[in-house]
Amino acid sequence: MEQPLNSLSATEIAAGIARGDFSAEAVMRACLARIEAREPEVGAFIHLDAEKALAAARAADAGPAAGPLHGVPFAIKDIIDTADFPTGWGSPIYEGFQPPRNASCVELFLQAGAVPLGKTVTTEFAYFNPGKTANPRNPGHTPGGSSSGSAAAVADDMAPLGFGSQTAGSLIRPAAYCGILGYKPSLGAYDLQGVMGLSPSLDTLGLLARTVEDLALAGAVLTREPAALGDDFAEDAPRIALMRGPHWWEGSLEMRDVCQRALEALAGQGAETGEQAHPEVFAELTECQKVIMAFETARARAFEFHRHRDGISEAFADLVEGGLAISREAYDEARRITAQAVRAMDVLFTDIDVILAPAAPGEAPAGLGATGDPLFSRAWTLLGMPCISIPFGSGPQGLPLSVQLVGRRGADRRLLAAALWVQQRLA
Amino acid sequence: MEQPLNSLSATEIAAGIARGDFSAEAVMRACLARIEAREPEVGAFIHLDAEKALAAARAADAGPAAGPLHGVPFAIKDIIDTADFPTGWGSPIYEGFQPPRNASCVELFLQAGAVPLGKTVTTEFAYFNPGKTANPRNPGHTPGGSSSGSAAAVADDMAPLGFGSQTAGSLIRPAAYCGILGYKPSLGAYDLQGVMGLSPSLDTLGLLARTVEDLALAGAVLTREPAALGDDFAEDAPRIALMRGPHWWEGSLEMRDVCQRALEALAGQGAETGEQAHPEVFAELTECQKVIMAFETARARAFEFHRHRDGISEAFADLVEGGLAISREAYDEARRITAQAVRAMDVLFTDIDVILAPAAPGEAPAGLGATGDPLFSRAWTLLGMPCISIPFGSGPQGLPLSVQLVGRRGADRRLLAAALWVQQRLA
Repeated sequence: MEQPLNSLSATEIAAGIARGDFSAEAVMRACLARIEAREPEVGAFIHLDAEKALAAARAADAGPAAGPLHGVPFAIKDIIDTADFPTGWGSPIYEGFQPPRNASCVELFLQAGAVPLGKTVTTEFAYFNPGKTANPRNPGHTPGGSSSGSAAAVADDMAPLGFGSQTAGSLIRPAAYCGILGYKPSLGAYDLQGVMGLSPSLDTLGLLARTVEDLALAGAVLTREPAALGDDFAEDAPRIALMRGPHWWEGSLEMRDVCQRALEALAGQGAETGEQAHPEVFAELTECQKVIMAFETARARAFEFHRHRDGISEAFADLVEGGLAISREAYDEARRITAQAVRAMDVLFTDIDVILAPAAPGEAPAGLGATGDPLFSRAWTLLGMPCISIPFGSGPQGLPLSVQLVGRRGADRRLLAAALWVQQRLA
Repeated sequence: MEQPLNSLSATEIAAGIARGDFSAEAVMRACLARIEAREPEVGAFIHLDAEKALAAARAADAGPAAGPLHGVPFAIKDIIDTADFPTGWGSPIYEGFQPPRNASCVELFLQAGAVPLGKTVTTEFAYFNPGKTANPRNPGHTPGGSSSGSAAAVADDMAPLGFGSQTAGSLIRPAAYCGILGYKPSLGAYDLQGVMGLSPSLDTLGLLARTVEDLALAGAVLTREPAALGDDFAEDAPRIALMRGPHWWEGSLEMRDVCQRALEALAGQGAETGEQAHPEVFAELTECQKVIMAFETARARAFEFHRHRDGISEAFADLVEGGLAISREAYDEARRITAQAVRAMDVLFTDIDVILAPAAPGEAPAGLGATGDPLFSRAWTLLGMPCISIPFGSGPQGLPLSVQLVGRRGADRRLLAAALWVQQRLA
């Protein structure tokens, strides 16, 4: 039986359309059919217009091949401005607001030929207060957040690609909970014009997909690097070091187990593996991330906090109030420690190619009232290091487990190349 | 004769209102009267609503003292989102667009008690295509750009404070041309939520004022540092080094002269002065800044370039087209050189406190069809170093001349303290 078009990767879709195997419209129809069947249970989208999506796909078919994503559907987290859909930031304050422009990332995708499906559910202001989305693997469990809708849509074959963002753990955690790939690039790798921000020292736009090739293909549109990854590891397998980090014993048994199993499996495939202790300063980073995020969010979202207090959740008000209570000295100290840790981490990469670390505390927790804990992402986000979560097996409740690969800051293409090697061998 | 209220500094206005010497309404009336008299010639504002401004001032008088800027009027460059005024980015594409929120900097000013006057003219997308503003010292000459309106308004006593921004030389140049203080903080010092961006490696929000105390007072509201500057130079006068830089001979005779005269005057006041050669890598920085700005702008403003080509100027289209022609390799190389120069500059500050450098090529050029050359700011912006322009005398056409003080990246408060010392002695 042929694979349904909606479950193809972006790379396969683009190649199939280029070859004339199928049309962009056929792909879009398959995605929309999947959404029609599954959306009542999953709730990934906040704005979806099937007719508009089909018209865009037909326009792609009618026009010349525009770029490497020609005819590929994509989903857009609803903190990202879109000229053709309202952008509500997961908040009643901005429900129905129609921006006059596309965020740069959306426009670059459109120029590369990609076709927008619609806007996906985000937690309120990409923080903790959840939207309606359920985990497609088990709707009684959270999909994680804040990129809930994009992660669920990609995991459930509604779309091959989705935009998400991470300030604490908002890409890696939902990707891990839904069993797909989440990619948080190095800080600043993708332009943020038109993307709502909380904390400029942390905010990172990223991607959700089902294959590493798709992350590379889509990312290259945003960075203007070649889509094809180098064959860094064609001769020598990557050197992979497990870094348990200071929170190792706060995760679940299955989290520790999946890291150990992945490391052994990769060693069995020829990777040079070992363990790397975290630099001492690492133990302070989770707290530093919380301080910086709260302090900066209190500035960035001053308008909503001061002018629309009735329209924001208690969780978000607590974040801002916490930030207002942090002194400038405490903030500066957190930044000083961070700069020290960035230097300490950088030198590790002479002996290793990639760090393997927990992606989340375990399986997706039950219930839709919370989105889980970003504990295992805060430090990496703070350090601005590129991270990719890769699914590997499942836990006692039958939900996906993942590991996280972390690369040297700025060396995103080497991380992607290592992730490709790893995904091919863990699959 | 008493000084008119509109010509008082922000610090004097806040203190006078706090003492009960005058009301916020009286200050606003004085500013509005000045605007009414002078705006036909100066053209600083793009959106001004006198009734709204007066109502806000009366509300400040009726309420409790809200913060350190209680009752102080301020002007807002029209690339900054405002919930109470349209925000047009100096472009016909967005003429009349009404954002649903305030940029964080505006909201923080409001929370500190400041009263918004209106939106000031910016060049198109804060690049080169000028608006209607004339230099208040001589309306046949440019006020500089891109923060044209805020600089002219502050220089002409229409407002004590204005928001501006700099990606190449958009704060320092208009401040120098209009004869006021321009302050470009260290990269990232002020939050940019709600501020249109071109190039995230360069974009910096900053302030225009007539005294260093005002820069410190207003800046502290955005950074949550103390408003009062330390007395770093109470005992030992600052060590000030003239850095001519690679473009010294491309400026005017009077530019070179004002730098030399300022250095001598400061030496005569007890400063430890000398010259500091620029690090060799510095010669490459102007070109690196152009490469990074064009490459990043082509991403950030992709929507306007691809969707509203008819609505953008030839100058802006050229910038984007230039950016699209730059390879990723050339961009990465410019960033590598920049990182090297950042390290080279940082070490200089063991022996000196502040660099003295040209602020602009000379007096404001004649004509309103262009805004002058940011040549003497590009490198400092690229390096993310804090800069303050300080007026000192005038040139052959009777227009203001300025020097620029440059501090160590991140050491903004030390730069402000040095600038205070300098302004008091050059006045």
